Amino acid sequence: MAKDFSTREDNYSKWYNDIVQRAGLAENSAVRGCMVIKPYGYAIWEKMQAALDKMFKDTGHSNAYFPIFIPKSFFSKEAAHVEGFAKECAVVTHYRLKNAPDGKGVVVDETAKLEEELIIRPTSETIIWDTYRNWIQSYRDLPVLVNQWANVVRWEMRTRMFLRTAEFLWQEGHTAHATKQEALDETYQMLDVYADFAENFMAIPVLKGLKSENERFAGAEETFCIEALMQDGKALQAGTSHFLGQNFAKAFDVKFASKEGKLDYVWATSWGVSTRLVGALIMAHSDDHGLVLPPKLAPIQIAIVPIYKNNEQYETVCAKAREIKVNLEKKAFSVKLDDRDTYKPGWKFSEYEFKGVPVRIAIGPRDVENGTLEVARRDTLQKEIYSMEGVEDKIETLLNDIQQNLYQKALSFREKNTFPVNTWEEFKEVLDEKGGFISAHWDGTAETEQKIKEETKATIRCILLNAEKETGTCVYSGKPSKQRVIFARAY
Amino acid sequence: MAKDFSTREDNYSKWYNDIVQRAGLAENSAVRGCMVIKPYGYAIWEKMQAALDKMFKDTGHSNAYFPIFIPKSFFSKEAAHVEGFAKECAVVTHYRLKNAPDGKGVVVDETAKLEEELIIRPTSETIIWDTYRNWIQSYRDLPVLVNQWANVVRWEMRTRMFLRTAEFLWQEGHTAHATKQEALDETYQMLDVYADFAENFMAIPVLKGLKSENERFAGAEETFCIEALMQDGKALQAGTSHFLGQNFAKAFDVKFASKEGKLDYVWATSWGVSTRLVGALIMAHSDDHGLVLPPKLAPIQIAIVPIYKNNEQYETVCAKAREIKVNLEKKAFSVKLDDRDTYKPGWKFSEYEFKGVPVRIAIGPRDVENGTLEVARRDTLQKEIYSMEGVEDKIETLLNDIQQNLYQKALSFREKNTFPVNTWEEFKEVLDEKGGFISAHWDGTAETEQKIKEETKATIRCILLNAEKETGTCVYSGKPSKQRVIFARAY
Repeated sequence: MAKDFSTREDNYSKWYNDIVQRAGLAENSAVRGCMVIKPYGYAIWEKMQAALDKMFKDTGHSNAYFPIFIPKSFFSKEAAHVEGFAKECAVVTHYRLKNAPDGKGVVVDETAKLEEELIIRPTSETIIWDTYRNWIQSYRDLPVLVNQWANVVRWEMRTRMFLRTAEFLWQEGHTAHATKQEALDETYQMLDVYADFAENFMAIPVLKGLKSENERFAGAEETFCIEALMQDGKALQAGTSHFLGQNFAKAFDVKFASKEGKLDYVWATSWGVSTRLVGALIMAHSDDHGLVLPPKLAPIQIAIVPIYKNNEQYETVCAKAREIKVNLEKKAFSVKLDDRDTYKPGWKFSEYEFKGVPVRIAIGPRDVENGTLEVARRDTLQKEIYSMEGVEDKIETLLNDIQQNLYQKALSFREKNTFPVNTWEEFKEVLDEKGGFISAHWDGTAETEQKIKEETKATIRCILLNAEKETGTCVYSGKPSKQRVIFARAY
Repeated sequence: MAKDFSTREDNYSKWYNDIVQRAGLAENSAVRGCMVIKPYGYAIWEKMQAALDKMFKDTGHSNAYFPIFIPKSFFSKEAAHVEGFAKECAVVTHYRLKNAPDGKGVVVDETAKLEEELIIRPTSETIIWDTYRNWIQSYRDLPVLVNQWANVVRWEMRTRMFLRTAEFLWQEGHTAHATKQEALDETYQMLDVYADFAENFMAIPVLKGLKSENERFAGAEETFCIEALMQDGKALQAGTSHFLGQNFAKAFDVKFASKEGKLDYVWATSWGVSTRLVGALIMAHSDDHGLVLPPKLAPIQIAIVPIYKNNEQYETVCAKAREIKVNLEKKAFSVKLDDRDTYKPGWKFSEYEFKGVPVRIAIGPRDVENGTLEVARRDTLQKEIYSMEGVEDKIETLLNDIQQNLYQKALSFREKNTFPVNTWEEFKEVLDEKGGFISAHWDGTAETEQKIKEETKATIRCILLNAEKETGTCVYSGKPSKQRVIFARAY
């Protein structure tokens, strides 16, 4: 571990930033609030994209692409949407620059002013539903199951790499259906896809739930979410799936003729996850030695470091290392053989440890003689000597173990940090001393929710979908409550 | 062929637009100059992306992501670049909207004016080289081999779907090297990658050449390109690879220490292709029956249409069709079995023909009895009866044939439409009556090039890389010429 690298205990926030920067994941750019996603960070996002894109296609969706610009007037068409989205955003007002009169650089050409300003999309419901009006006339045109991979911009005041940036990358699914039930089924289906991805690829257990009205997407009838718990006890919303009812169909006049010839508005959903997931991945598993990545999303799953003292040893060891690499690649693992002579083995060990490579193999001249390898796993930092025979199968098992172990570790952390509380004193005490998910009764009113937020900064993360119905009294107001909900401070 | 669909002869430009719209590739959006790429069109782009991305990675490149916003002042740092790019572009001046005082909609909040305007990237050299300054200190940090898949905006006045749009999707490679030779090698390598992709995936033969100074990328030392010929005899630039020298390193102060400790500026390249390639693909192969796609880039390679008169036949025929589909998918072909009962077989035949699906299989009750299939190929519109036995292998051969045939057809078209001319009269006559590529002597001056452009709208497409050196006299000025160059009217 590098000495100038923060620990979680010392300074959680700095620890996170140190990992992002020193593992080469991202860095701040010259543009306020916008980050540069560096190759190693982008490779993680590409792995996420590939897995999610396959899941979307397996559930019948196709990709498309809609303009980045949204005419300002579009936002005003859906009443709730405009309040939620058309505020902190990037506004394009001109379409030309010209040479400055003083000859120094360029200035905005005031004669090239747009008649109507264009907004860089903060989300695409409006431009997409304006398009769907032409795509949908009859029940035969439904469902429309479309997803878009795109960049979006929200002019956030406080930004943090991956977790909250002015520009970020995401996918946004936008579907259109003939019936309410079909749209609701789609909303639940995509929530399940997200939970499946979080748990089986990211190795992060998530709660599936419904958002309270306060936290609902602007323009949705209902917002569902997956919520994860980070190591500092704060929650992170990792994905949302919205049932939009007929709100956008009404705002953009999208009707269809049913089989019986009756005209009705179309039912809608939208759902999205973003590069924020990379932030969640870092925070969920990493330790005081740097990044820890689950094998299924690691750009490099196995790093091989040859150990040698002279040219002859270099040749022998690297020949064997290449052979192992080829055999591992036959199993479709991504393997990096680091045979650079500009860096020493010790430096390489630290490097791959810091970068969270799940498995590191060291091989030296004696290993070649004995038919052995030194295998180190990143999650537990344990080392073991493997026989070279059948090593591909053993590494495969090891990678599966690591994937499972990270999930179990995160699950047991969440279980240890989920607290049912029954009094307001207890609520505040647990929140301040332990953090985590707090399961408490709530009277169901926005007022109480707001007061709790003001007094403690805790918000309702979700109303669990699979929770037992249990009546009780609200932890804050003492009024009757129909079920417990999950509170936490959140990213 | 639908009656309201234009032919190439009648109206080439309308024919193109009809294909784009009626095959469901793209449509104009509510935002001037921006298109919506529809699922079928986007699926072609995804196939292109997958093939190119693999070629980039196989040649050692990684993907990354840089901000969409570029501070205005960045453009002024490279003298040629600012002239070429910082003019017709989208300018962000404000970062907030507010409710209109009259309660109707939203207006720009004038108090939220940016100190420095942000430009939506028309290309990313400036923001990327501003970033590379922090990435590169020593020769050990080189080469940097990065690519970005992104959207860019150039405020074009005359737009045309795929070929020229205000917003478009592209990839831009940006590499940094320790030596001039290494950067030049990279420039040539990526030109070869593009030519390989155009010829072997798009089935479009291309000329590889050097741009004249007039046509050079703003900020480059040399621009290389691949040029394709469309069916109306106009040229289309399909990709460019730029040797940037040390221009951007000097503008953004990017230096490295060599092995010997000497400080020097870094050498650069950039290279890109865009969604324009989809336009090229459409124009190169399609016919008066609609879109024609090469099998390697077709989202659906094989469409299976069951023919039946009653429920019993439907069951039998579809069961067999599903079996064939499964067997074809084992060979990794993308197959669509269209068993919808809401459309008749004749309608489906037209649909897949119009959408350019390379192979269409029809199967009816008599086929099931006889163990046969009707197989139609899109390129020649020929139909043939196949025995079901070993049909997967025969279809595989057929798809390869179609891919080759499309390339050969395009190549022979180009050969027939490439004209060496030796006089100015001949030049104008060929250009007006035949179009195509004109190979002519040029005196090497920008003045002559400009005059030819003014008089004929023909430009120098490229100076062929592999051409024989042949001296002669300039077709326009009569002055001495060192070699023939390629002229054409172009998209």
